[in-house]
Amino acid sequence: MSLIVQKYGGSSVADAAGIKRVARRVVDTQNAGNEVVVVVSAMGDTTDELLDLAAEVADQPPARELDMLMTAGERISMALLAMAIHNLDAVAQSFTGSQAGMITDGIHGKARIIDVDPHRVRTALDKGNIAIVAGFQGMSRQTNEITTMGRGGSDTTAVALAAALDADVCEIYTDVDGVYTADPRVVPSAQKIDRISSEEMLEMAASGAKILHLRCVEYARRFGLPIHVRSSFSDLEGTWVLPSPGDKIKISEGVALEQPIISGVAHDRSEGKVTVVGVPDIPGKAAEIFGIIAGAHSNIDMIVQNISTRGSGKTDISFTLPIVEGADALAALRAAQESVGFESLIYDDQIGKLSLIGAGMRSNPGVSFRFFKALSEAGVNIDLISTSEIRISVVTRADLLDTAVRAVHKAFGLDTEDEVTVYGGTGR
Amino acid sequence: MSLIVQKYGGSSVADAAGIKRVARRVVDTQNAGNEVVVVVSAMGDTTDELLDLAAEVADQPPARELDMLMTAGERISMALLAMAIHNLDAVAQSFTGSQAGMITDGIHGKARIIDVDPHRVRTALDKGNIAIVAGFQGMSRQTNEITTMGRGGSDTTAVALAAALDADVCEIYTDVDGVYTADPRVVPSAQKIDRISSEEMLEMAASGAKILHLRCVEYARRFGLPIHVRSSFSDLEGTWVLPSPGDKIKISEGVALEQPIISGVAHDRSEGKVTVVGVPDIPGKAAEIFGIIAGAHSNIDMIVQNISTRGSGKTDISFTLPIVEGADALAALRAAQESVGFESLIYDDQIGKLSLIGAGMRSNPGVSFRFFKALSEAGVNIDLISTSEIRISVVTRADLLDTAVRAVHKAFGLDTEDEVTVYGGTGR
Repeated sequence: MSLIVQKYGGSSVADAAGIKRVARRVVDTQNAGNEVVVVVSAMGDTTDELLDLAAEVADQPPARELDMLMTAGERISMALLAMAIHNLDAVAQSFTGSQAGMITDGIHGKARIIDVDPHRVRTALDKGNIAIVAGFQGMSRQTNEITTMGRGGSDTTAVALAAALDADVCEIYTDVDGVYTADPRVVPSAQKIDRISSEEMLEMAASGAKILHLRCVEYARRFGLPIHVRSSFSDLEGTWVLPSPGDKIKISEGVALEQPIISGVAHDRSEGKVTVVGVPDIPGKAAEIFGIIAGAHSNIDMIVQNISTRGSGKTDISFTLPIVEGADALAALRAAQESVGFESLIYDDQIGKLSLIGAGMRSNPGVSFRFFKALSEAGVNIDLISTSEIRISVVTRADLLDTAVRAVHKAFGLDTEDEVTVYGGTGR
Repeated sequence: MSLIVQKYGGSSVADAAGIKRVARRVVDTQNAGNEVVVVVSAMGDTTDELLDLAAEVADQPPARELDMLMTAGERISMALLAMAIHNLDAVAQSFTGSQAGMITDGIHGKARIIDVDPHRVRTALDKGNIAIVAGFQGMSRQTNEITTMGRGGSDTTAVALAAALDADVCEIYTDVDGVYTADPRVVPSAQKIDRISSEEMLEMAASGAKILHLRCVEYARRFGLPIHVRSSFSDLEGTWVLPSPGDKIKISEGVALEQPIISGVAHDRSEGKVTVVGVPDIPGKAAEIFGIIAGAHSNIDMIVQNISTRGSGKTDISFTLPIVEGADALAALRAAQESVGFESLIYDDQIGKLSLIGAGMRSNPGVSFRFFKALSEAGVNIDLISTSEIRISVVTRADLLDTAVRAVHKAFGLDTEDEVTVYGGTGR
């Protein structure tokens, strides 16, 4: 008997018909001889409707009360799902985040999980029942208050519960049938990825792939938990996100860790680029600048420092950060211009980031040559470059991003399934 | 400084505008130098919408999950109200039933309060904050489950909290401006009652007056707590429901316990009448019949046994009960016809009940004479009669009920405020 944690997003439980469809799938999973824990998000537009109501009654709703409000959403969807399951003659019990033992810190709106004590969920399973848990929410042990986890919270709830219950797999249900080699809206010939390592998925998520949130992949990787991303609208296998070889993996036959060297192309339009011009090229200046940014609570992504070419003892430092945090970061830098001693600031929010992700990239020098050649042939100018062991990212003009994604996707043979191995032999 | 508990029903918080209006009133009450605890129901149609969703996904939703679902309603309204109060520069904290210490038994859907431990509410007040509490919901200490209290639950929450916090008054806000001498929709000349004793209000509520639920009045009476029923749409004084004289009463000037002998006329169309014909007139038969009804979980209201007039050693027993419970009660009786030995059953759901309520009624023999004379002159035939110390109730044909209510209301001078004392001098 396997223990399966399934997570259904808001689009899967958007209305009564969706809830009944999910109930059918949950009951089928149990009838196939599994223990089943289900994590649900709020129904379709519920979250937006509640936020609209909040905006109608208050200019700046207090975070505690926003959390109290938002947690009503999953309470509704999980109770309805439990009812729909009962209607199929199975027994389900729903649990709030607090009841399911999701213990978080006390930061309203973006709480982090600090402990998971799912004894009530375990008891429900031991009775042969299906356990349904509200995603996205928890309780702070310190303040005794209801909290929510912010973006990606329901996925993270599912993975955290799966880890705490020592589940065999965490299935993340969504409205697409898996992770693709590129965003199919940009690259219509993109292919579904059958299996990908946690590390690569992490880079994909960090590089703008929306399908799984960074936090949830990090959590799964740390606990060696396989994730299966799949569609709630079909029975097809989706994408398996697999922890490092050697970690516990119990998967249906046919799934193995053999993988193509290139996993996919991710892109991101949500960032802006700041260039700090004329920074004194002396030790400690970079730390000073990034200390200022951290003080403004901005999350920096790529950082590039050019060498000092002007003979003036000055250099330029560029970095990207979420556009929504741009204004605060700039204000903080301007306030410190004199003490840091830089000359000026340039801000550009018309940029796009493109990332190529694949294991073994560094040991294949042909990869970066092919990558930059493809961009060059497509007429795409490159602004910033950064690399990791399994990723190359570049910043381009926003209006050239789609062209760039398609060019790279094609250059690495991702458009057709069988060409992938050309660049990496049999993989590792 | 007074401690005031205010309860706002769903129609008062039906939309953002309503929530902001309530917030204004709450803050004004605090600014006038009071400690304020607010109990809210779910917004307007939320409860019905949630019930509709439940009906869409399941034929017979389990009671535990229905409670989980329904409690989302107050969670939304209380969080929004807290936000709206913050927007007026006051500080409010919202509390679920469980957080507010509303401990109930474990009966889902109609839980009874068994303890109230409002220490978190008290702490919020001690900090100078406004406390907002979800009505209608609690938690079972025994099962650790979320419960709801059924009809009248929010009023009862307010009164129970007020009693536990030793509040000075419990204000019940509604969409009418108080308790009337009769239903104004039936008797347009009905007068608002300025003050009424808990006992009389109890009889009014039990006799069909919808404005306050029986349970909440019983609770207030037991704890000697004054209730002020008033409109959330105006600043007018409403109706004070006052515990027995001698109990703690701290009320604004002008309110006293001097009261007219006749409080009002209540009516009820929700009951049906069962007559068990030809019951052997021997001891124990009535007990046998009502044991059967109790076994069918029906709540009997009026009971009348005629004397045995047919010389046959047989009698008839009639009683009224809610129409919704009629079918079950009849089925239970039919199943026991042989063992009880009655001849037949008659069921009539086209009846109406009219009740005249007033203190000191029994010591004023003129009251019943005037009552029956009014009905007779209006051509209303009487089917059953029952009386208490402060109430006379009759059952009539349903289609004559409005005529009967108007006739009695007029006969006791309730149409104009100054005639009321004619029948009782200065009251007691």
